[in-house]
Parts: sequence; structure tokens; C-alpha cells
Amino acid sequence: MDMPVSQPRRIVPVILAGGSGTRLWPISRTARPKQFLALLGEHSLFQQTLLRLKDDPRYGAPIVITNEDYRFLVAEQAHEIGIVPASIVLEPVARNTAPAIVAASLMAAQDGSDPLIHVLPSDHGIVVDKAYAQALDTAEAVAREGRLATFGIDPTEPATEFGYIEAGESLPSGGRRVARFVEKPDAEKAATMIAAGSHYWNSGMFLFTASAFLAECEKLAPEIFAAASAAVDKGRADLDFYRLEAASFAQAPSISVDYAIFENTDLAAVVPAAIQWTDLGSWNAVWKSGARDAADNLGVGKVTLNAASRSLVMSESHHVVLDGLDDVAVLASEDAVYVGRLSAAQSVGEVVKRLKADPQTRHFTEIHRTSYRPWGGYTSVLNGARFQVKRLFVKSGCRLSLQKHLHRSEHWVVVRGTAEVQVGESVRLLHENESIYIPRGEIHRLSNPGKIELEVVEVQTGDYLGEDDIIRIEDEFGRS
Amino acid sequence: MDMPVSQPRRIVPVILAGGSGTRLWPISRTARPKQFLALLGEHSLFQQTLLRLKDDPRYGAPIVITNEDYRFLVAEQAHEIGIVPASIVLEPVARNTAPAIVAASLMAAQDGSDPLIHVLPSDHGIVVDKAYAQALDTAEAVAREGRLATFGIDPTEPATEFGYIEAGESLPSGGRRVARFVEKPDAEKAATMIAAGSHYWNSGMFLFTASAFLAECEKLAPEIFAAASAAVDKGRADLDFYRLEAASFAQAPSISVDYAIFENTDLAAVVPAAIQWTDLGSWNAVWKSGARDAADNLGVGKVTLNAASRSLVMSESHHVVLDGLDDVAVLASEDAVYVGRLSAAQSVGEVVKRLKADPQTRHFTEIHRTSYRPWGGYTSVLNGARFQVKRLFVKSGCRLSLQKHLHRSEHWVVVRGTAEVQVGESVRLLHENESIYIPRGEIHRLSNPGKIELEVVEVQTGDYLGEDDIIRIEDEFGRS
Repeated sequence: MDMPVSQPRRIVPVILAGGSGTRLWPISRTARPKQFLALLGEHSLFQQTLLRLKDDPRYGAPIVITNEDYRFLVAEQAHEIGIVPASIVLEPVARNTAPAIVAASLMAAQDGSDPLIHVLPSDHGIVVDKAYAQALDTAEAVAREGRLATFGIDPTEPATEFGYIEAGESLPSGGRRVARFVEKPDAEKAATMIAAGSHYWNSGMFLFTASAFLAECEKLAPEIFAAASAAVDKGRADLDFYRLEAASFAQAPSISVDYAIFENTDLAAVVPAAIQWTDLGSWNAVWKSGARDAADNLGVGKVTLNAASRSLVMSESHHVVLDGLDDVAVLASEDAVYVGRLSAAQSVGEVVKRLKADPQTRHFTEIHRTSYRPWGGYTSVLNGARFQVKRLFVKSGCRLSLQKHLHRSEHWVVVRGTAEVQVGESVRLLHENESIYIPRGEIHRLSNPGKIELEVVEVQTGDYLGEDDIIRIEDEFGRS
Repeated sequence: MDMPVSQPRRIVPVILAGGSGTRLWPISRTARPKQFLALLGEHSLFQQTLLRLKDDPRYGAPIVITNEDYRFLVAEQAHEIGIVPASIVLEPVARNTAPAIVAASLMAAQDGSDPLIHVLPSDHGIVVDKAYAQALDTAEAVAREGRLATFGIDPTEPATEFGYIEAGESLPSGGRRVARFVEKPDAEKAATMIAAGSHYWNSGMFLFTASAFLAECEKLAPEIFAAASAAVDKGRADLDFYRLEAASFAQAPSISVDYAIFENTDLAAVVPAAIQWTDLGSWNAVWKSGARDAADNLGVGKVTLNAASRSLVMSESHHVVLDGLDDVAVLASEDAVYVGRLSAAQSVGEVVKRLKADPQTRHFTEIHRTSYRPWGGYTSVLNGARFQVKRLFVKSGCRLSLQKHLHRSEHWVVVRGTAEVQVGESVRLLHENESIYIPRGEIHRLSNPGKIELEVVEVQTGDYLGEDDIIRIEDEFGRS
């Protein structure tokens, strides 16, 4: 049986997953930013985004656009929840949202079709309810008219941390024309807009047909269109990823899609909606989204609250006690603690700038003590002058690269599961409570042939212990 | 040349070092309480107390009274600064200050002499200045009159955390009779006393002749006198320590020297003095004693202060950021963080009670991640279900007991220095980057024959990993 010709094609979601925000420091860091963290609940925000789409039959498989550094995080987190993206597109350099969305739209239309595209950030929280479904229906109708739809969130307070969209005349499809975009306002201006009505929070989500968006882009931002087109044409598939070609993509100016297209096109429309939406853009926003106790506290992890109120306490390692304070944010990662006023927690960004500027503290903004790799990962547990101790965890069936080090020797003790270890030409199995020594300069490889996770305590000794002392001879993840 | 007969014997300091206060949690814990911590400066409060006495020619060698658990801490910390106590007296059970002071006084007078005794806590801060020297002179004169001198601190504010002493008529020696002792007052009562004058903070320091004090004790608290006398008589020297006999000492009621003697004797005198004194009894008191910055913050350790004021931030491990808050205490130990209002930081005690009551959190009040032993110590760096990783540090020339474990195997990797390792009958030297395996049940011993500290990474695996799985066959520290 042929498919009926009138069957609408499914919407292609384009998920923006390349951001590396700093406002949720110290839990969020450059190496594993907000969208990949399970801040609230079992799944990361990126996974929650994928699951929201999966459960809605109007969507096809998503295109995820991210950067080189996050490719394994994206692939694993999608895999973990059984989702196979249509494509994971890698930006060779960061160029803000406009070039990324143009490239992803070109890829969505590569088969000659003209799909509807829903662009959405990977780190927002949305409650899927009737208002949300209705907004999507309206946005779809608006987009089918050839317009570029934005989602305008009904403001619940005169927030100063969002841009606003002023809505103009109504459209037959149910949306409204965009009268103007307003930058993040001060408190007074925000209050005036709320009082005036017809002003909505700019959610950063868009819905349009590929043809309408790309035509506007070609007209209004031809250099972005040219750069993105060339980057897609000359790009190449690499394992699970699609790599945009670097030289071409680098030609694109670094600019947001709002500035480059939406503020200049006559086709912009806003779909006002009372969506329960949060950008989780500050610890205060996280606190508002969580399940708070009777004293309005949100405690996550090993936490004791004593006569505290309206506070957020989250700990990944230490046992944290908050005692007799109100409106305080305490965030404890494996190596750093932030204590500040919860209602002013957007100032975390300022602190991160200070820490980044100091070579002694920069690493606290960049990496966690636990690092994730395609095969599993490791936690740095002890650092001495000429030694360090790591806990390695290797997923069932995975193996690390065949590698050697010029400056360090390694002692491995298997503490859980079974390891297959190659040292030089010899290969042997190690079980729990067995150990092996890898002399400096010797090639070696660690694999987990077992059915359960392998855990190894690694003691490194040497005169230089940086992660960059690694020569990969062979690698399953394309890193050699 | 004979010593002139008139040469006064030197004062015997009796240092009380058995306390295990909770108000400086999480830095202070039962296993290593306040007096043994270097809270401010390079030396611990106990060491600062010893050094203060050492620099003053009027004092002889101190008698330190402490409990079983702190004996090695006392011995090592004294040794570290080159001080040899006359005696380290061990209380077999805690019986508050009265029985301890009686026992120590009996020991000070054991040679048949009648020395002056200065009783002082090991965890107070005192500035040695002219006022202090004058107060000592006066107290000495008062004591030589046969009175029991207390030191009354000129109050600088209506503090509610100290007991007060009301001074009565003046004595020829310069002190004053005690009119009465006042328990810790409320704010109103404190203000009234300060306004009235002649009221002083009770510092917990005493100066008297052994004969006068012991006679009063025999008269006013005969059961304490009898128990302490028997405990001293039947006690025994053990290595560097003098162990009071347990059964006798346990007969003594648990009572403070204030209640048992000073509030009941007619001989009590107070020496009022404008001494710069602090009992460091709360984080607020520590903050007051430290070198604060222009914004009145005291930061110790890895700390970043951003627009904070009048706050205390102290970290032993994590990098701590305090941002935009006033009057806050943030204390981070290796495994716990306390965040509270600095000016109300005496409520730490309440929090500690809560943590102690919960089996999940009790250990945070008892032990640190780093434990000290007479041979060095260890830090627990990683805990798994069936394994744990420790960093052992062994002082030059020291060795652990000859021991075995019933439930765990151990892998040792030398990461600094040189180890001599006995496993079963065989003994070998291990250098940096060498390792050895100790099977479960095998006798073994770790020694540091070298000139620098030895560091070993120990990976334990087994079905039970508690510290109490240790059978000591031989031990240099009397623990087998």
C-alpha cells in the first residue's frame, strides 16, 4: 500500500547542544555543561529534551548540533535512553546560533524535501501539557503559511533575565506578527511591558519550514548562508557524527539567529502561549523548578537543613549543612563550593570570570574531578607532587585506546569486574583484587570483556602527569 | 655553689587537654578536637599553650592531662616543638575537670614539695603582654597567701557564652575575694552585670599551691580526693605516659572544679585583669581572633571572597567561593561543609547533635578523613562497596605494628620515599614506583627506614573493610 500523498511529513527537531554556560557553576563546567547534567530527576536536561520529542508522534528523529568536545556526551546520553538521532552535527568552531541553525536546516532538507523544523535548546525545562500542545499546533499552522514562528511565553513576573517579544496584529493561523524584539530589560522596563500586555518572554524556540527559513537567510545573511552551505557540502561523516568542514564554517560571522534573521525579516511571527517553561538559567531558576519542602528549601544530595528557608542546597560529594539562613544557594561539586544569595545567583557568572582569570583556579571552571569518555571515564581522587590516583570505570564491552606514556608508569588494581589487559605483546585477564604494572613507555590497553562495569584503581607515578602525555596507537573512537 | 634556699620553685603548669568540644565542627571532631588543630597560624592551640609557657622562666615542665585517645597527639605535638612534658597523665574515663585537676595536683606534689600549680585549658588564645604578666604576678602572690586564685577577664562586651565572677573585697596581695560565681547569663543579665562593674568573665584558669588546693578538696569533695589519690597511687607508667588506675578513677563523680571546689571554698580569690583572652569557643570567636581583611572577612585556605563582608570562610579541601553575603560562616573539612550565620554560630552544637543522632551522619562528627597515628597516619581517599583506597604517610624511622587482617587483602604502591616491607617471613625494600601485595591473613609490617617521609597508596579489597579488622602481633606503641 502506498502512503497517501497528503500524509504530512513529521517535524524535524533541531536540538542546540553546544552551549557551555557558566551560570550553574560549580556543578556545570566547560567539560560537562548544564544540558548534560541530571540537575533535577534521573535524566539530563538534554535527555529530557529528547524524551519529550520521542513521546510526541508529530516529530521525526532529531538532528543534534553540538561541538567537537561534547560529541561523545551527546552520543552516549542519546544511546542511554534508546534514542538514535538522525544526525549528530559537529561545529568545528563556535559561531553562535545562526550558522548552526542554518547548517542543521540545510541537512534536514538535504533529501530534497521541505520539512518543518523545530529549533529548540537542549537545556530548558518544559511541562508538556495542553497549553504546550496548542502552542505547537498554532506554530505549525503559522509555519505552513510560510512564516518563521517564535514561541512567546506568557510572563508570570517582570523578569529581567529574558529578552521580550512584543506581539503585533493577529494572523489568520492564530499567531501574531512580531512588532519588535526587546533586549533583557531593567526591572522598571519589564514592569511597564507586563502592564502594557502583548509582551512575551523570548523562549529561544523556533518553528519554520526549511525553505522559508533558508530563503530568508540567503537574502538577509548571505555570508552565513554561504559559509554554512559550504561547510555542509564539504563536510564528512565520521563514525556516528557529521563533521562540518572547518575552513568554510569558520568564515561565518559569530551571531545569534535572533540578530541575524528574526529581527530583520518581515516573516517573523510569535505564538503566545502559557507554557510552563524555564530556561534553568540560574540557580534561582533551578530552585523554582524543583520540589521544595515546607520551608521552601530544595535539598539535593547529602544535605542537612537546620532552620533554613527559601534556600537551595545541592551536593555531589561533601555532606553539607545549612543552618539558620534564608535565601542562600550552596552548591558543592567534587572539588568546589559556591555559597551566595539565591535570589542574586546570576552573579555566579561574575565569580566564574574571576576564577577563570587566575591560573590557580581556572581548572575549577573547566573540568570536574570526574571526566567522561566514550568507554566510561575516571575520577581523580588524589594528587601528589609525583603521583596521582584515579578511579577508572569502563563500560561492559568497551576498551580504551592502545596507548603509551612518555613520563609516567601506571599500577592498576582491579577492584570490581574483570579486565583484559594488554602490556607490550602479552594479554591477560585480571580479576577483582589482582594488579598489574605498566612501565613508562610500554604500550598497553585496558578492556572490559565482562558483563558488569569494570572498576580499576590506577596509581600513576612520574615526573609529568598531565592528560596530554598520551600517544594513541589505535582507537575505536577515532581519537588516534 | 648551693642554690639559695629562698629561690622560689618554678610554677608547675597543669594543662587540660582532654576536651572534645563540638562547637568548631566540621573542622574539629571527636578524634582530633579543637586543641590539636592549627586553626590560626602554624601551631595548634595546644602547642601555642606549651610555647607560651616555655618562653616564661617562671614555669617548669608542664603536666598534661588528657584521655587515652589523645595520648599520641599530645606526645607528638609536644615533640614537634621540642617540649618534653614532666608527665602526660591519662584519664581512663572522662570525669570532667575536678578529678583530673586533683590527680594532676597530686602528681605535681608527689616529690614531697609544695609547688605552685597553674591550671590552664589547652585550647584558649592569650596574648602575652604586660597585663597578662601583671595578672600572673598578682595570682602568684594570692596563691602564696594560701588562697585559690582564679583569673577574671575584664569583660569587653556583655557576652552570654561565659560564666561570670563577681569580685568582693580587696585582698592585701592585690586580688579580690570571690563574692559569687554566676552561670552563663542571658543578654539582659549580662548587661546589668557589666553596668554594675566588679563582674569578670570566668576564664577557667586557676593558680594555687598544691597543699591549699588539695586540703580544700579533701575537705569539700572527699570522694573526689579519695578516688584521685587511689588512681594516682595505683597508676603505672607506660612508655611516655602515666596511666591513672581505671577502677579507682571511675569512682570519682563527674563534676567541674568550679562546682566541686571553687563555689564552696572560702579561699577563692579572683585576679581581675585586662588580658587579651579568648576561649575560641565558637566560629565567631575564631573570626574575632584572626587577621581580617578590609571588609572584615577572615579567609583561611583555598577561598575566594566576592563582595562578602564580616564573614569567616575556612577550607581544608574544596575551593570555596563566598559571594555577596554578610555575616556568614563557611567551614569546609575534607568531607563536610557547614554554612550558617557567623554571629549565631554557637548553634553548631545543635547541628552536631542532629548529625550524631543519625547513624548515616554520625561519623562526620567523630572522625576526619585523615587520621593520625603515632607512626604517621592515613587519609581515606576513596570508598567503594568492596574496596577502599588510602594514602598512608609514615614518619622517618617509624614502623607500624606487625599485623594481619582476616577480611581484606592490601596492595601497596610506594609513591614517595623508601619502604621496608615484611610479608610473612620475607623482608624487602621498596622504592618509589614499586608495589607489593599482601594476601588476606598474611602477617605484614610497614616501616620507613629512610630519612624522608614515606608515602604509600594502599588499595584494600575484601568483604569487610573496617579499621577494627586488625590483629596486632607486635607493636612499638603498646597497642598489641
